[in-house]
Amino acid sequence: MVKVMVPATSANLGPGFDFLGLALDLYNTVSFKPADEWYVTAEGYGAEVLTGRSDLLVCKALQRVFAEIGKELKGGIVHLENHIPPAGGLGTSASAIVGGLAAANRFLGEPLSRDELLALAVEIEGHPDNVAPAVFGGLVGVVKSPSQPYTYLKIPFPSALYVVLAVPKLRVPTVEARNLLPKEVPLTEAVFNLSRTGLLVGACYAGRVDLFRLAMEDALHQNRRAVLIPGFHQVVAAAYQEGALGVALSGSGPTIIAFAPENRQQAVGTGMVSAFNEQGIEAQWLSVAVNHDGFRFV
Amino acid sequence: MVKVMVPATSANLGPGFDFLGLALDLYNTVSFKPADEWYVTAEGYGAEVLTGRSDLLVCKALQRVFAEIGKELKGGIVHLENHIPPAGGLGTSASAIVGGLAAANRFLGEPLSRDELLALAVEIEGHPDNVAPAVFGGLVGVVKSPSQPYTYLKIPFPSALYVVLAVPKLRVPTVEARNLLPKEVPLTEAVFNLSRTGLLVGACYAGRVDLFRLAMEDALHQNRRAVLIPGFHQVVAAAYQEGALGVALSGSGPTIIAFAPENRQQAVGTGMVSAFNEQGIEAQWLSVAVNHDGFRFV
Repeated sequence: MVKVMVPATSANLGPGFDFLGLALDLYNTVSFKPADEWYVTAEGYGAEVLTGRSDLLVCKALQRVFAEIGKELKGGIVHLENHIPPAGGLGTSASAIVGGLAAANRFLGEPLSRDELLALAVEIEGHPDNVAPAVFGGLVGVVKSPSQPYTYLKIPFPSALYVVLAVPKLRVPTVEARNLLPKEVPLTEAVFNLSRTGLLVGACYAGRVDLFRLAMEDALHQNRRAVLIPGFHQVVAAAYQEGALGVALSGSGPTIIAFAPENRQQAVGTGMVSAFNEQGIEAQWLSVAVNHDGFRFV
Repeated sequence: MVKVMVPATSANLGPGFDFLGLALDLYNTVSFKPADEWYVTAEGYGAEVLTGRSDLLVCKALQRVFAEIGKELKGGIVHLENHIPPAGGLGTSASAIVGGLAAANRFLGEPLSRDELLALAVEIEGHPDNVAPAVFGGLVGVVKSPSQPYTYLKIPFPSALYVVLAVPKLRVPTVEARNLLPKEVPLTEAVFNLSRTGLLVGACYAGRVDLFRLAMEDALHQNRRAVLIPGFHQVVAAAYQEGALGVALSGSGPTIIAFAPENRQQAVGTGMVSAFNEQGIEAQWLSVAVNHDGFRFV
């Protein structure tokens, strides 16, 4: 068996809609060896609905690597250990895809580079801002263009910032969250986000965490998606009140990600959970480090 | 007399519409001392229309600094030396404003900081992405928000890149260029620009000039304004063909700015001029360095 740990990711970070993603020190694990049929077992989140399936993204990804080098994979013995809360916004789909690709590639003696695995992952997932950080780790900006499926840049994330997640017991399907977005937006909103995206990238390189609050603002997707997340604005306000330096919807939500200075993680986390609770919504908070290297084998 | 040299600026740089501006080693100069009436003289570009006026932006800016510290300026002896081609897109309005502010401030013993001068300049000009680089030099990103008139970050510009300007004999009034922009844009264009703005800022910090061509692309304003600039697309193509690493409309045009590697400035410049000429438009090209420190006294 080969075994790979794939980090959670927080995409659409702040103003960086469809561009910026951050890898987190929180993992789903894929163990794999080939077999004539699929034998999938799982523990942790979603174990009951995943065990016994053969139509999972992870299976598709495993097969995709075999196909890429001209081989066929009929099935496999697959074991999943899921530690990433599946509520939404933490890249569990991306982790399944990257986990399958990485495990199959490892089993085959690593014929494909991480760049090539990213290309396959983008082909399967469509949105590279989730998969790129799962592959490379850290804060990654990914640009799509007609001539290249993706171009990425790894951006240094300030070590002075600690990640706090608020994970509510709410189900926000990604498709539904995406349908809330209009086809057209005011030019002023486009300028709002492009200027803050530039500022955020610069603030990361320059270590200017004092610029984060302004630089993390978004006009394009958060307010529109907040209708699916009761308490969104209150949770953001609570995090700032407790000392967070930046707060954003994680992915398409409903998880909310905050960046806190040292020793403020608990205050920010409990503040966010209380704000959710006041709206009648259960939530948990997690303090996690940034993952810097992407998936890894164990 | 005090005398200040104010750099030309190239705003709206690449995808950074209303955000990114670059200061250039090309100057308009303002000399000033107070008087009971206005005596304005000028040499260089626009000398004939400027001489004898009292309603110029530079006069307004001179008076604004006096007013800020509770004094009245009735008039002044002002001499302008204009070396920045006024065709459009090189920030001549911003240079007049910043020149007036800086000259008055200098005369008064510099009661105001550069930050305070920027605040006054933004108040007069409205668009901080032209005035901020004229004040601070280099590549500057400026974010406007309701709570603060501007927040700026100076971004290191790669020393491997040389600036080449193509200045056509065309008049594109800024107001007309702005009226070509729609109130709403596709969300895909917003994502196009925000992702490239992030990539461009990152590429500058990381010295990744190989990313510039993709990172300098724009979907929001250039194509819409190109209808006022015959040959725009051909000039951009010619610059890339001659080895430019990034090309963009400068400000709201019609000047076009290209970044060339060492020893390619002349090829890029003559290529751009030829492309304009093929459309029946006269043009000149200039190779200029980046100004790193903003306005300076002489």
